[in-house]
Amino acid sequence: MRPLYIHTPVRSGVTAEGGPAHPPTPPPAARPPARGMLQRMDKGGLRHVVAVGSGKGGVGKSSVTALLAAELNRRGQRVGILDADITGPSIPKLLGLTGPLVDRGEGIEPAVSSTGIPVVSSQFMVEDEQTPVIWRGPLVTRLITQFFGSVHWGNLDYLLIDMPPGTSDVPLTVFQTIPIDGMVFVLTPQDLAALIVKKAMNMARDLHVPLLGVVENMAFIDCPHCHERIELFGPSRVARVAQEYGIPVLGSLPVMPPVSELSDVGRLAEHTATEVAGLAEAFEHAVDDATKNRVTVL
Amino acid sequence: MRPLYIHTPVRSGVTAEGGPAHPPTPPPAARPPARGMLQRMDKGGLRHVVAVGSGKGGVGKSSVTALLAAELNRRGQRVGILDADITGPSIPKLLGLTGPLVDRGEGIEPAVSSTGIPVVSSQFMVEDEQTPVIWRGPLVTRLITQFFGSVHWGNLDYLLIDMPPGTSDVPLTVFQTIPIDGMVFVLTPQDLAALIVKKAMNMARDLHVPLLGVVENMAFIDCPHCHERIELFGPSRVARVAQEYGIPVLGSLPVMPPVSELSDVGRLAEHTATEVAGLAEAFEHAVDDATKNRVTVL
Repeated sequence: MRPLYIHTPVRSGVTAEGGPAHPPTPPPAARPPARGMLQRMDKGGLRHVVAVGSGKGGVGKSSVTALLAAELNRRGQRVGILDADITGPSIPKLLGLTGPLVDRGEGIEPAVSSTGIPVVSSQFMVEDEQTPVIWRGPLVTRLITQFFGSVHWGNLDYLLIDMPPGTSDVPLTVFQTIPIDGMVFVLTPQDLAALIVKKAMNMARDLHVPLLGVVENMAFIDCPHCHERIELFGPSRVARVAQEYGIPVLGSLPVMPPVSELSDVGRLAEHTATEVAGLAEAFEHAVDDATKNRVTVL
Repeated sequence: MRPLYIHTPVRSGVTAEGGPAHPPTPPPAARPPARGMLQRMDKGGLRHVVAVGSGKGGVGKSSVTALLAAELNRRGQRVGILDADITGPSIPKLLGLTGPLVDRGEGIEPAVSSTGIPVVSSQFMVEDEQTPVIWRGPLVTRLITQFFGSVHWGNLDYLLIDMPPGTSDVPLTVFQTIPIDGMVFVLTPQDLAALIVKKAMNMARDLHVPLLGVVENMAFIDCPHCHERIELFGPSRVARVAQEYGIPVLGSLPVMPPVSELSDVGRLAEHTATEVAGLAEAFEHAVDDATKNRVTVL
C-alpha cells in the first residue's frame, strides 16, 4: 500500500525543451488498460458509464454530476464518479474528499464520500490542493485511462465521468477508449453557452457517442428578499437545443444558494431538491432507453 | 488572398490510430514564429501583451477580456484580442465577429470589431459556428503560436490573450513562447473558483509570469424587482486571494443583466459601467507598474 502522488515541478522554470525543469512523474501504471490506449476498455462490473459535460466551463457540470450522483445514490443505486477534469478538478471539493489514492493490490482504491460514493480525481494526487497539474495532453489522457482501467471500482450501477471543458485531448480519449453508454450535456441560458455546448454535442455525435439529454443549470434565481424570479442569464433555450438534437430535457436547475454554501464546505451530497429528484429520474429513463435500444454495443 | 479554414472531420468516425478519419488540416504556416516553438517570439509593434485567465471555465474571462478591451479602446488605447481558447472560443460571439481570416500578404489579417478592436479566433476558421475543433494539444498550440507570430497585428498598446481553462497545453505554450508582460486572473466568489484560480496563479508563478492582479466577476446581483443585493455565490473572497499573492484587486463586477443581453447579440463592446471604467484604470496602472519595475525582460 503506497500513496500515489503526482510530483509537480518545483519553482525553477523550464528547460530548453519546454518541459518543466523537473518533469512530473507519470502516474504509475498500476494495471494497464485491457486493450491498450486506443481501443475501448472493458466495462468490468460497471453497468452503465455516462459522461457529463458541456464543452464550456463553469456551467455547473461538476455540481450537476455531484448532485445527480448523490440523488441516484439515495434512490438505491451504486454510483461512482471519475473526475476527468485533470487540470481543474472540482468534485473532491464539492464532496469534501481528500487523497491520497492508494493501491492495496486490487487496483487503485477510490476515495469514498460520506454517503458512499467512490471518486477518483487528480486532486487526490497532489500534496497541496492548490498545486496545479501542469501536464500536456499525453500525460493527461494516460491518467484518464488509468482512472478507468486501473481503479478498483467494483460493481456500480452508474459510473459518471465529469468531463473538462473543450473538445481536445480528454474528450477524444474518453470517447475513444472508455466504453461509455452516452453523454449528458449541461448548459446555461446564455446563447454563448448554447453555442459551445453544441460544439461538444457535435463532437460526440461525430464520434458515435449517444446524446442522452440536456440539463439546464443556473436557469434563474428566486430573489430571497422579494421572491420574484430573476432570469440571470436571459430566457431559457434548453428546449430549443434539445429539440434540435432530438433528445430530452432531463431537468432545469435554478441557482440555489444552499448549493454554493454546501459546496464550499464539501457537503453538496446532502442537498436535496425537487428539481434534482426529477433530474435523477429522467436520467435513469434516458440511460435505460439508450442502452435498451442499442442492438450492437460499439 | 485566401480564406483560412480549419477542415474538420466528417461524420465517419475515427481511424485505428485514434485520429479523426479525415484529420484536420493543420493551419498554414503563413509566417513561422521568429525563433521557433519553444523560444519566446518577438513583440513586434505590441507595447504590452497581457494574458487574462482563471484556470476555471465559466467565470467570465472572455466577458471581462472583451469589456476591458472595449473600455481601454474608449480611453484611446489601441487594443487587440488573441482568443487562445481554441476549443471553446467566446470572443467572436461577444463582439459580433465572423470569419474567415484572410492573408493579404502581410500575415493573417485579424477580424475587426465595429469599435475597432482586432481579434483572431479559431471561430473564424470553421465554416459553421457550431463546428467543434477536435484537436489534440500539438495542433492547438501550433495555432496559438501562429495567432501571435503570423497575424498582422500592427501597432497596439495592449494585446489581450483570452486564455482557456486548465493548466495544460495552451497556458504552457503561451507562457513559454509568447513574450507576455503578465497575467490577470478572474475569479467568482465560490471557494471552488478560488481554489482553481490559485492553481493557475501557482502555475504562472512557477513559470515566472508576473501576476498583475485579480478581478472578481459575478460578485453579486442587485434584484431588478426589489433592488436588494443578492450574493449569488456567497461572500467575496477576492481581497483574501489578492492579499495572499501580494497583488492588487483590479475590480469587482456584479452580474449585469445588460451584459447577457448585449453578449447574445454580439454588442458587448457597447456596455459601459463605472465598475468597468475602474477596472480599465486599475489594469493600466498594474501593467505600467509591472513593466516599469522589471529591469530585465525575460
